[in-house]
Amino acid sequence: MAIRNKVVLAMLFFSLLALSAYSYLGTQEPDVDPELITCNHQCQQQQQYSEEEKRICEERCEEYQRMKKERQKEIEEEARRKKEREHHQRQDEGSDEEGGEEESREKENPFVFQDKHFETRVETDDGRVWVLQKFTKKSELLRGIENFRLVILEANGHTFVSPCHFDSEVVFVVVKGRATIGLVKEEGTERFNLQPGDIMRVPAGATVFMVNRDEREKLFIAKFHMPVSIPGEFEAFYGPGGEDPESFLTAFSWEILQAAYKTQRHKLQRLFEGQKKGSMFNVSREHVEALSKRTMSPGIWPFGRQWRGPFNLLSNGPSVSNEYGRLFEMSPDKQTQFQDINLLITWVNITNGSMTAPLYNSLATNVALVIDGKGDFEMACPHISFSSEGRSSSATYQRVSARLRPGVVFVVPAGHPFVTVASTNTNLQIICFEVNARGNKRIALAGKKNVVKAMDDRVKELAFNFPAKLVQRIFNRDEQFFFPGPCTFEEREELGRAYA
Amino acid sequence: MAIRNKVVLAMLFFSLLALSAYSYLGTQEPDVDPELITCNHQCQQQQQYSEEEKRICEERCEEYQRMKKERQKEIEEEARRKKEREHHQRQDEGSDEEGGEEESREKENPFVFQDKHFETRVETDDGRVWVLQKFTKKSELLRGIENFRLVILEANGHTFVSPCHFDSEVVFVVVKGRATIGLVKEEGTERFNLQPGDIMRVPAGATVFMVNRDEREKLFIAKFHMPVSIPGEFEAFYGPGGEDPESFLTAFSWEILQAAYKTQRHKLQRLFEGQKKGSMFNVSREHVEALSKRTMSPGIWPFGRQWRGPFNLLSNGPSVSNEYGRLFEMSPDKQTQFQDINLLITWVNITNGSMTAPLYNSLATNVALVIDGKGDFEMACPHISFSSEGRSSSATYQRVSARLRPGVVFVVPAGHPFVTVASTNTNLQIICFEVNARGNKRIALAGKKNVVKAMDDRVKELAFNFPAKLVQRIFNRDEQFFFPGPCTFEEREELGRAYA
Amino acid sequence: MAIRNKVVLAMLFFSLLALSAYSYLGTQEPDVDPELITCNHQCQQQQQYSEEEKRICEERCEEYQRMKKERQKEIEEEARRKKEREHHQRQDEGSDEEGGEEESREKENPFVFQDKHFETRVETDDGRVWVLQKFTKKSELLRGIENFRLVILEANGHTFVSPCHFDSEVVFVVVKGRATIGLVKEEGTERFNLQPGDIMRVPAGATVFMVNRDEREKLFIAKFHMPVSIPGEFEAFYGPGGEDPESFLTAFSWEILQAAYKTQRHKLQRLFEGQKKGSMFNVSREHVEALSKRTMSPGIWPFGRQWRGPFNLLSNGPSVSNEYGRLFEMSPDKQTQFQDINLLITWVNITNGSMTAPLYNSLATNVALVIDGKGDFEMACPHISFSSEGRSSSATYQRVSARLRPGVVFVVPAGHPFVTVASTNTNLQIICFEVNARGNKRIALAGKKNVVKAMDDRVKELAFNFPAKLVQRIFNRDEQFFFPGPCTFEEREELGRAYA
Repeated sequence: MAIRNKVVLAMLFFSLLALSAYSYLGTQEPDVDPELITCNHQCQQQQQYSEEEKRICEERCEEYQRMKKERQKEIEEEARRKKEREHHQRQDEGSDEEGGEEESREKENPFVFQDKHFETRVETDDGRVWVLQKFTKKSELLRGIENFRLVILEANGHTFVSPCHFDSEVVFVVVKGRATIGLVKEEGTERFNLQPGDIMRVPAGATVFMVNRDEREKLFIAKFHMPVSIPGEFEAFYGPGGEDPESFLTAFSWEILQAAYKTQRHKLQRLFEGQKKGSMFNVSREHVEALSKRTMSPGIWPFGRQWRGPFNLLSNGPSVSNEYGRLFEMSPDKQTQFQDINLLITWVNITNGSMTAPLYNSLATNVALVIDGKGDFEMACPHISFSSEGRSSSATYQRVSARLRPGVVFVVPAGHPFVTVASTNTNLQIICFEVNARGNKRIALAGKKNVVKAMDDRVKELAFNFPAKLVQRIFNRDEQFFFPGPCTFEEREELGRAYA
Repeated sequence: MAIRNKVVLAMLFFSLLALSAYSYLGTQEPDVDPELITCNHQCQQQQQYSEEEKRICEERCEEYQRMKKERQKEIEEEARRKKEREHHQRQDEGSDEEGGEEESREKENPFVFQDKHFETRVETDDGRVWVLQKFTKKSELLRGIENFRLVILEANGHTFVSPCHFDSEVVFVVVKGRATIGLVKEEGTERFNLQPGDIMRVPAGATVFMVNRDEREKLFIAKFHMPVSIPGEFEAFYGPGGEDPESFLTAFSWEILQAAYKTQRHKLQRLFEGQKKGSMFNVSREHVEALSKRTMSPGIWPFGRQWRGPFNLLSNGPSVSNEYGRLFEMSPDKQTQFQDINLLITWVNITNGSMTAPLYNSLATNVALVIDGKGDFEMACPHISFSSEGRSSSATYQRVSARLRPGVVFVVPAGHPFVTVASTNTNLQIICFEVNARGNKRIALAGKKNVVKAMDDRVKELAFNFPAKLVQRIFNRDEQFFFPGPCTFEEREELGRAYA
Repeated sequence: MAIRNKVVLAMLFFSLLALSAYSYLGTQEPDVDPELITCNHQCQQQQQYSEEEKRICEERCEEYQRMKKERQKEIEEEARRKKEREHHQRQDEGSDEEGGEEESREKENPFVFQDKHFETRVETDDGRVWVLQKFTKKSELLRGIENFRLVILEANGHTFVSPCHFDSEVVFVVVKGRATIGLVKEEGTERFNLQPGDIMRVPAGATVFMVNRDEREKLFIAKFHMPVSIPGEFEAFYGPGGEDPESFLTAFSWEILQAAYKTQRHKLQRLFEGQKKGSMFNVSREHVEALSKRTMSPGIWPFGRQWRGPFNLLSNGPSVSNEYGRLFEMSPDKQTQFQDINLLITWVNITNGSMTAPLYNSLATNVALVIDGKGDFEMACPHISFSSEGRSSSATYQRVSARLRPGVVFVVPAGHPFVTVASTNTNLQIICFEVNARGNKRIALAGKKNVVKAMDDRVKELAFNFPAKLVQRIFNRDEQFFFPGPCTFEEREELGRAYA
């Protein structure tokens, strides 16, 4: 047994998982992990091993090293995120919840995205582009929308955004500020002056540039990308450029470029050394004024009939409106422009202290971006099971909830009942990208017209096991879609009680 | 070496895989696994460990625990299934095969599903809902149909099924019994009385309830779900309900509910305490009679033009019919209702002792549910390679075969030739959900019109390397689509031999 | 501690990863791995183990064995591939690059496929069928085209290809030689005589046979498969056949076949013993002549309106043409035939020493097959990051490059700028299968009409940070689409310098 012990120990010494407790034995060498050296050494010293077995052994060593490093990275990442979370921890005046609760809630919530779920793709002195992580990175439950990517662009006053094209269809929504957007076609350039609420579809492959027309006000644009080449992935292709943004032309060899442009190499080199300012940079007032002169001839864009220039979501008036809120939708003739991508865009403005009726979409999945104000979101979900506050984990429907503030993104899958509530201080404004929108119906669960109220008395009675008249009394109210919110209501309740 | 031994042993003590043999060392504590406690303890006691390493160590302990528990679950699950298999082992009078063979055959057959592949999603005293596992759980070969889910609902006499909506399109097919199905829209409720062969499309998000109109006879409904939100996953959303079925409204916080329904909390609490009977329960004859009165105004359903109420598959007469069997198909005007989901439903009734011609679908993949009778299924498949009975594994085409009985589901991918045979005692009835059906052709390989018979003589001769006349003689016969089956044939053969 | 040591050691002896160094202990038994026997034995001898724990233990043994075998397979596979690579290493006379560089370049290049990426699916004395590996086998970046498969068929003179159907839509393109293709429908056979440039769509499930009409010249056909049943997978289904090609009918049991064909078993057995020549074999001149007589009645194919027989890509003349090259495209009326599969086929002929303009597709992803000549391919890609020649890995756009020769396949995703160059000796001919082609635009980056030239001067200036006039001078030239290539250019440059 003794000899066997030794042999086994020797073997275990460099076996994959024994290594997990092994790091303190290594000698200190600067570049390569000493653990890896020792492990490989042990592999080579095993005389009973064939060359192939030694190779397998060494590969195990490396694999373990890799795993260890990844784990370390994860730990660092977690630490970084924790810091970030602490940094972002809202000092929300209306918040009566504790940070700890929110943190754990967030961890378990696959439908809500915050600042930390965005990656910075471009960052210059004059602007930034954030890309929301792939939806499936957060949860497999979002695989139905995995080909969509949400992007936020922020540009300082008089900032120019260099021309580029994308390998994705894109919809631009101007959230804040005044932009001039130019589309370049082989026949010339077409420019449009946009304001908040303007929506513009940019076809895949179309070269687009932008400028913030305003000298002071920041420009915020929400972009919804629908990749056409690699599902879920898109990139910006800068043709005009140089070192920064790098022109994709510089990826070609000099021989090719010389032939393509019938130009000597040194001239091309000079050309590509010109631009070093990045893809977003400040330009002069004169430049801005020249760029924001609208072009005269809109012409017919080569990207086909669906493309008809920008339109304003807010200008036609709301499709639903009362004192508690307003809903702006694309009019049917504008929708045809988006039919091939099966997308609908809506803009919701909930009056401070008000809320939306509990409702669900029959077909559409809603990717919602909070653009102004504060508030709350609650949704019932049967697809997840986790223990949330005050609710046994045996519940069929989990409450998904989130505090809303500008930049928060929440996803409402089809069929899922949800509610959004504006804080008592500010209106809550949300832009919704509704995918799979064709034929979608919003089905209300409360308000003047709702699906429970519409049931036969007998069905109400059977379903609730409760007198139909009492059910009807609860599900009957006059407002539609937008209601007074919980806070307002509490006051009224108080009032009511006083009178009772 | 001795000291090193001890150290290594101590480390190994709590390393991931050493733990697999470690359970007997733990002291008996009731709630937490003693193994986990010991493991974590060991992690903390390692003085050479940094805090981070201790943390990694403890995480490994937890991961091992999780793996162990999962493995235990699997073992239990396997045991359960084995019992189930034994329980279900058919005492099939027509079977001349041994159970053992069938079992191994089943294991290797990714195209056939039995009772054990269904999960019970609802079970009350009065009814059950079974959901077939995801097709891809069985085999990656079925990933082309992974978004579809087959469901069977069984309800006792006078059972009410509570109103709910689904995050999927659904097609209901009444297999047996008499149902009243109600669709609730915001303008009111529409009810339909259905009988066997009735097909009804329920749009995603539509609230639907049901009652078994018959006092005695069980109601069986086959449902084909096409999820719209999370691919391959769907859930029932019960709005009206309480504790059981839980109403999804109870997932919202009280403040939200109070505001949404302008109602005091205690009233809402009482409402949601009413229902405890589950989603399927027995109701009085009076209730049934009231519910099964057809509504007068069908109106126009808000879910759009494609929805036009139920229709009967059997009422228009078969599209193919002879003494050996009948095929019922949706007429072209009904098909338009299903065009957007690219689905065709057929009902096949094979006379006892008869069979279908060998044939294949050009485009459609057929998900077939046996609803009555017994029989056999054979299919040729080039995509799998396993050693089946009496057939070398080098064969290009594997025989996929299954005994058919009510509840068995078999899948026939496009292009795959197959045959179904009814037992000598009973007619075999099958409902087929044909996905990707647009433009599909059924291509026969035997019978009056078949693709081999239609070849030029020269091609026949070259392809079979056999005289065209003899090929023609074999591939020429009068019947079409339904033939006398093997058993009948054997008798005839005997007769034939007697005359020869 | 001593006893504990022993126990732990005993346990570790057969734990999963200790086994990795354990093989030398096994006694030599021929069939079963001695390691597995020892491991299982150790599991059984552990008295402190419950039955369940013993079972887990044995499963671990088996899992380890499986992993080991897989690893061995991988090693063998790697060795095989390495040999193959060495074998294929081109002795390309026009190549001025070193083999080593190309090899490493290839390894890092997910967009280019060579001989070794094809699998031989059929190989007889008279012909071969090669299938390109699944695109996703090479890179996840190609998952957007993972349902498409490229196939090359090569047949000697007077070779007959047996009738079969596919579970995929197929487009045949005759690359070289003269073929007769027959389509069999239940009403009869339709035959077409094809020549280079002929394109023919074969619907899924349609039975198709072929013959090389020429006695001497080889026939080359490129086939583009779009599976309809199992995404990314297709198979040939030979009905007429016997032992080789095996008839799929032989997968059915004899009872079924006897009943289906009302024929005695021995007759069927004789039929299926006839064919042993394989799916491609030489036939007599008389057979060829009989088969290549065109059928009189084209009739209406049962596969629907989209199918209208073959047409020639080259006969209508090029859509782009100059002395440097010609581009042949499907005319709009032919395109409708391919609209449901959203595919466009083009044939590019680049004059020796010439090149295509740098351009990108707005929507289509181009799967290009080199069919004649030699040359080079360069593409800019932002989705990959690897260190390529003379280019820091921090570059935004990587150069993807490949030497082109017949049989090489390269993929150009939407949005990616690329260039192809013909060698100075031979014209370069390429067939392009453009998927997702509906609404696609080719956007040029150089030449008479190009997107940079079309920009406003101010945008040019801002984007390049370079005087607009100089930018314009570089981006302004007269030719369109096809240009003189780098070699020609170099000479001119020399000339130019002489005159300067």
